[in-house]
Amino acid sequence: MTTYDLIFRTFRIILEVVIRISLSRKFFEMSRRRVTQKEIALSVGVSQTTVSLILAGDDTPSASKETRERVLKAAHTLGYVPQAAARALVSGRANTLAIILFDPHEQVFRDPYIPNVLTGITEVASVQGLRLLVERVQDGSNTDVVRHLLKSSVADGAILVNCRLPSATIHSLYHEGFSLVLLDADQPHGLPLVAIDHIAGARAAAHHLLSLGHRRIGCIPYAILDHAHIVSRYDAFIDTLSEAGVDMPPEYVVNGRFDPDTGEAAMHRLLALPQPPTAVFAMNDLMALGALRACQARGVRVPDDLALVGYDDMRFAEFTYPALTTIRAPEVEMGRRAAEMLLRLIDEQPSAPPVEWLETALIVRGSCGGLTRLD
Amino acid sequence: MTTYDLIFRTFRIILEVVIRISLSRKFFEMSRRRVTQKEIALSVGVSQTTVSLILAGDDTPSASKETRERVLKAAHTLGYVPQAAARALVSGRANTLAIILFDPHEQVFRDPYIPNVLTGITEVASVQGLRLLVERVQDGSNTDVVRHLLKSSVADGAILVNCRLPSATIHSLYHEGFSLVLLDADQPHGLPLVAIDHIAGARAAAHHLLSLGHRRIGCIPYAILDHAHIVSRYDAFIDTLSEAGVDMPPEYVVNGRFDPDTGEAAMHRLLALPQPPTAVFAMNDLMALGALRACQARGVRVPDDLALVGYDDMRFAEFTYPALTTIRAPEVEMGRRAAEMLLRLIDEQPSAPPVEWLETALIVRGSCGGLTRLD
Repeated sequence: MTTYDLIFRTFRIILEVVIRISLSRKFFEMSRRRVTQKEIALSVGVSQTTVSLILAGDDTPSASKETRERVLKAAHTLGYVPQAAARALVSGRANTLAIILFDPHEQVFRDPYIPNVLTGITEVASVQGLRLLVERVQDGSNTDVVRHLLKSSVADGAILVNCRLPSATIHSLYHEGFSLVLLDADQPHGLPLVAIDHIAGARAAAHHLLSLGHRRIGCIPYAILDHAHIVSRYDAFIDTLSEAGVDMPPEYVVNGRFDPDTGEAAMHRLLALPQPPTAVFAMNDLMALGALRACQARGVRVPDDLALVGYDDMRFAEFTYPALTTIRAPEVEMGRRAAEMLLRLIDEQPSAPPVEWLETALIVRGSCGGLTRLD
Repeated sequence: MTTYDLIFRTFRIILEVVIRISLSRKFFEMSRRRVTQKEIALSVGVSQTTVSLILAGDDTPSASKETRERVLKAAHTLGYVPQAAARALVSGRANTLAIILFDPHEQVFRDPYIPNVLTGITEVASVQGLRLLVERVQDGSNTDVVRHLLKSSVADGAILVNCRLPSATIHSLYHEGFSLVLLDADQPHGLPLVAIDHIAGARAAAHHLLSLGHRRIGCIPYAILDHAHIVSRYDAFIDTLSEAGVDMPPEYVVNGRFDPDTGEAAMHRLLALPQPPTAVFAMNDLMALGALRACQARGVRVPDDLALVGYDDMRFAEFTYPALTTIRAPEVEMGRRAAEMLLRLIDEQPSAPPVEWLETALIVRGSCGGLTRLD
């Protein structure tokens, strides 16, 4: 054997060892990635059918309790992942849609808004077998959360509710290829958006009260003046009255804040005025509920003494007494459309970001007097 | 140079190469796992402070737009993951709690029950910086979904709502070390459970109506007879009446199904009886809403002609007219406790599965006549 032979053979052995190691690593990684029911069957020494039945959660297969436990243990040890997840691995997707709620208040799920949106999103997601990930972002300026959520492949895309990120930041995320849909923002700002046309909704409320002959019209707005779409909704209401020559004195505007209690307090202040309004627009139904109770407490008859119009048409609006006239905001539909748009964006990012506006509808019930006067 | 020298040196070189490769692999993996802001700063050629500001989403740092884009691009390319997520990697946790809804109906988020539970879970989760993953399982017998959810490390633990898995299956999951909490089941079955004592709640409703002198008492139950805890709640109501010598004739029991409309239809049937009941227990507030409307439509005065008691004390119960007497089921609190229990289980699985029962409370308002008669 020559020296070169020796070197050559040593080389070959080392090379072989290196190849074997890397192959075994690869095999190990492969097996970590996808353990089949067949492998479990082999490892336990039972039929593949038995494994399949047991892993499907069937508690009454012909197999003994002991076999069942051995199969489950083997599946656990080997790291078995069922089909749907395996598909997710192959597709490289998390099969999860994220809903990111910016600066939500504590009771965000108790108000009908988010549950309604979730209902719509869920309708689409459940048909597609997708999960929902709900993330609350308390610090609205925190880009990291959104970036990481998408980057870490925990979710395939996100619906941003009440998004507080600077517009440039969302743009940069979107143009990096992350799938995003803004929900119910006042303007698309060049991004994908599904929103309700609240401007038209507020105008409809004003037109309705004007058409019933009211001139002393009050308003209970949300006191969230940094929410652009709340401000624009409020402005649209005021402007519509102005165009009809009706100016709302400052004391006719009393802010509420989301819930019935603040609506009740606001209505008490309006009714305590020397010359109270004859009609009030409560800018959500929750506040309108409280406003109705303030009227009951003061013996103010609705709609005879005061016409009341709410906003949202939440589920319970038709069960108040009198039933609440309101502007229907199609929140469930908005959730549905946002989920559908997000799924399309995940498949392919179009050159122009899609934008969809949904229309509101005036729902006339008992609280405005419109039913009787229009008869 | 001898042959052995040559072999030795060749060996050393190869060894070094192998070590370098594995080290660089390791380095690569490390850097994949955790890219620091410092590395991004070095790669772009700006200060670490600038990187920090830009990654924090600050849009008005002293850096130019171009620098900002380069930093974001570098962070993206290098695979920067922010702190919270890095912590998650170190801890080996997903920092996510799953809520698994078994066989939910389409509108599950529109009923107050799940939103209330989510409110409680969210309170705990948001303090801990945890995400919520909402999974709907349509095929209740499908163990795979639950198994995979936990196994795939998408979530650290799960709260099972209306769990339909066979008891043995959940046991096996639990004893494999998965962190699980059953929510609002009728029995713990040897598993961690947080539940409301609905038996006591139904008994309280019966006692209240009996104490007001009613003997002709009707009931609008949920028509979900395979939900054990609905059946036991109904049985408890009937039994309590029986113990007081009051037997409910079959025609006094008309099933509803979740929503106001079915409650309304059920109440119409009860009121159309030759001898209608003088008191009705609607087994959720949604059905009670509809029942109230049926009374209004027929000119049946509540509570003068008919006493009505609901169940749940959903948010809107106090805003009906008359305000609804009901049994308060502490759903938000249940969500909170379930999340807290789950977090403890994730930290350490105790020898005995913890069980917590929450108490209901009778909330007397206008709809039962109890306020006036008790005065």
